[in-house]
Amino acid sequence: MSLTVYRKTHFNAAHRLYRSDWDDKKNNEIFGKCNNPNYHGHNYELEVGVTGEINQETGFLIDIEELKKVLKEEVEDYLDHKNLNLDVPEFKDLNPTMENIAILIWNKLRKKLNKSYKISVTLYETPRNYVVYNGN
Amino acid sequence: MSLTVYRKTHFNAAHRLYRSDWDDKKNNEIFGKCNNPNYHGHNYELEVGVTGEINQETGFLIDIEELKKVLKEEVEDYLDHKNLNLDVPEFKDLNPTMENIAILIWNKLRKKLNKSYKISVTLYETPRNYVVYNGN
Amino acid sequence: MSLTVYRKTHFNAAHRLYRSDWDDKKNNEIFGKCNNPNYHGHNYELEVGVTGEINQETGFLIDIEELKKVLKEEVEDYLDHKNLNLDVPEFKDLNPTMENIAILIWNKLRKKLNKSYKISVTLYETPRNYVVYNGN
Amino acid sequence: MSLTVYRKTHFNAAHRLYRSDWDDKKNNEIFGKCNNPNYHGHNYELEVGVTGEINQETGFLIDIEELKKVLKEEVEDYLDHKNLNLDVPEFKDLNPTMENIAILIWNKLRKKLNKSYKISVTLYETPRNYVVYNGN
Amino acid sequence: MSLTVYRKTHFNAAHRLYRSDWDDKKNNEIFGKCNNPNYHGHNYELEVGVTGEINQETGFLIDIEELKKVLKEEVEDYLDHKNLNLDVPEFKDLNPTMENIAILIWNKLRKKLNKSYKISVTLYETPRNYVVYNGN
Amino acid sequence: MSLTVYRKTHFNAAHRLYRSDWDDKKNNEIFGKCNNPNYHGHNYELEVGVTGEINQETGFLIDIEELKKVLKEEVEDYLDHKNLNLDVPEFKDLNPTMENIAILIWNKLRKKLNKSYKISVTLYETPRNYVVYNGN
Repeated sequence: MSLTVYRKTHFNAAHRLYRSDWDDKKNNEIFGKCNNPNYHGHNYELEVGVTGEINQETGFLIDIEELKKVLKEEVEDYLDHKNLNLDVPEFKDLNPTMENIAILIWNKLRKKLNKSYKISVTLYETPRNYVVYNGN
Repeated sequence: MSLTVYRKTHFNAAHRLYRSDWDDKKNNEIFGKCNNPNYHGHNYELEVGVTGEINQETGFLIDIEELKKVLKEEVEDYLDHKNLNLDVPEFKDLNPTMENIAILIWNKLRKKLNKSYKISVTLYETPRNYVVYNGN
Repeated sequence: MSLTVYRKTHFNAAHRLYRSDWDDKKNNEIFGKCNNPNYHGHNYELEVGVTGEINQETGFLIDIEELKKVLKEEVEDYLDHKNLNLDVPEFKDLNPTMENIAILIWNKLRKKLNKSYKISVTLYETPRNYVVYNGN
Repeated sequence: MSLTVYRKTHFNAAHRLYRSDWDDKKNNEIFGKCNNPNYHGHNYELEVGVTGEINQETGFLIDIEELKKVLKEEVEDYLDHKNLNLDVPEFKDLNPTMENIAILIWNKLRKKLNKSYKISVTLYETPRNYVVYNGN
Repeated sequence: MSLTVYRKTHFNAAHRLYRSDWDDKKNNEIFGKCNNPNYHGHNYELEVGVTGEINQETGFLIDIEELKKVLKEEVEDYLDHKNLNLDVPEFKDLNPTMENIAILIWNKLRKKLNKSYKISVTLYETPRNYVVYNGN
Repeated sequence: MSLTVYRKTHFNAAHRLYRSDWDDKKNNEIFGKCNNPNYHGHNYELEVGVTGEINQETGFLIDIEELKKVLKEEVEDYLDHKNLNLDVPEFKDLNPTMENIAILIWNKLRKKLNKSYKISVTLYETPRNYVVYNGN
């Protein structure tokens, strides 16, 4: 029997969308006000789904306390109250769009969670815009 | 790498569920109070999902501003503050159930969005009742 | 010791905003798309607050089951799945704005709830627009 | 054309996670504060998804009133205001984790809903932890 | 300049409403299914409001980290994953209604927070029922 | 008859909390991770309440379209996708705490809305932390 368990968490961060190899005109055309050189920010709300078999002994698919610990170390400590462009090495030359942030989180969780689990990442950049990535 | 980007919007509309080829007794039996001949209404909340490959140059799957424009023209301008039975031609002889409204929205978006995207439509008729349609 | 107990409920209704003694031009100027002669509609979400002393014997300020019964009879049965302009006598010559609907609900509850209670009515016309009325 | 219709409901219950064949030390290690012998509790929020073909005559995938009746009889009457360990026979020797509760609800609905429908159960134990089960 | 700062937290607990000096018939009449002798439970969601003057040096009304610490010690550690009737001394002979729980929380916070602050407690027993107490 | 009409809007911004006349040690002690020199950010959700008499001719307390226009010009255009410390003159030497942002918004609205209205500002910095200011 396969189920998916979801855990929500959140982090608050600043970011800016632009390419250093484009001029201001093109950056503004493509990224609009997200290109503010002084940055803007979001409360990112994250839902992580873990799909797998139920452990018949405990009735748990995954120990939620263990999942919370992984989310704290891999996501909250790494991204909360950060400037994504300046403080997160992966975004040095990569735009911190919600798509790329979701992929980064999925990759970090993939390394820490048991390989028998499938993982999905749902990332809300605002209450109106969100993205889902499941590694495919 | 395939992801799904979601954008939320909303519209407020009146509707009535009934069939003109059924008598009042049968309409009331099947549609209950949704058959009020004077209409009732809802705040419809819509989530549109667009699945596709990430654009490596921008980090976007789709330009959200472009998606917002399509949603405004195809959904908000067409359905907001309307009587679905009287003001929307597709519902002249078709019941504006949440199922049929979701299919209408999906069909309208399918014509406007790039064929490389998969589309899903999640339509809340109330905070407690909703429907998902992805074109299959 | 005075507290306020809140209970939420909801109803779905159609309405139109206009004055029959104004011409179309003035109605459109003041009421915009809310003046659609074919009506539009909303999911109204209602929060009723009841302020009073705690009953030391039960620990209740008010019996919630009793409050639910009053809300069903006075609000849900009266307004749910209705056309506010056509089906509700009080709105025959009065615009069913969220302000006037809140006042109507407050007046109906005032007659049914014990005079020792203060009453407040919070009415959401949409998730983004709401009104509070407490009888003053 | 296949769609999925969702209906939300809820129930409030007490439970405790433990195994009678484990000692206190092991129960506390695995189940932490969920092992409180005096029980704790939750407001469980449930979303049931029903996937099937639209009925062209009515425009409904399923009669929501019929679905509400099944949910009342199979879920609300059976689980609401109950102690899951003591009042629900299925949990006499099975831990009432959110995973196992979701499976129980799915199995009960599977017996009552038409076999042509696929069913999914989304169960929120808290606003931050939830599980999805679709019978596979 | 006076403002009110709000902080949300939550706890999950079991409870039962009844009076030991009433017989079963009267307890069921007054408390209904909340009188289940095996208990039921809730996810209580709490909003604490602190009203006071802004500190011109920091721009804070209150240090949120300090408020979070008080809420953890006085509310979460005291009530989370507890049976309110059996594990909380104040409810040994007092019904743990949402009204009485709100008053208990307010009294505990009143002792810990600076006397210059006004305090309000908003306690959701379910997403549909809640109570506000501000000490008057 | 006096009522309060509420309208919600939102803006996304970056900020940093610190005092240039304090050293790093003191800034970190008081402002913690909010003192990140590279900034972090939030989705600010705003609810503006306008209290006044109902206009008997229209049934409106205030024309919501007019209120939306004021909110767009005074709040969204001024604060959305901005760095509050660098892009907003009022925060050149004032910490952009949620308290100070609420006061700024209230002052800007006070100048634009009719003096007969009372105004309240509710500003969510995160879904868990918010502030209310009504000008007193």
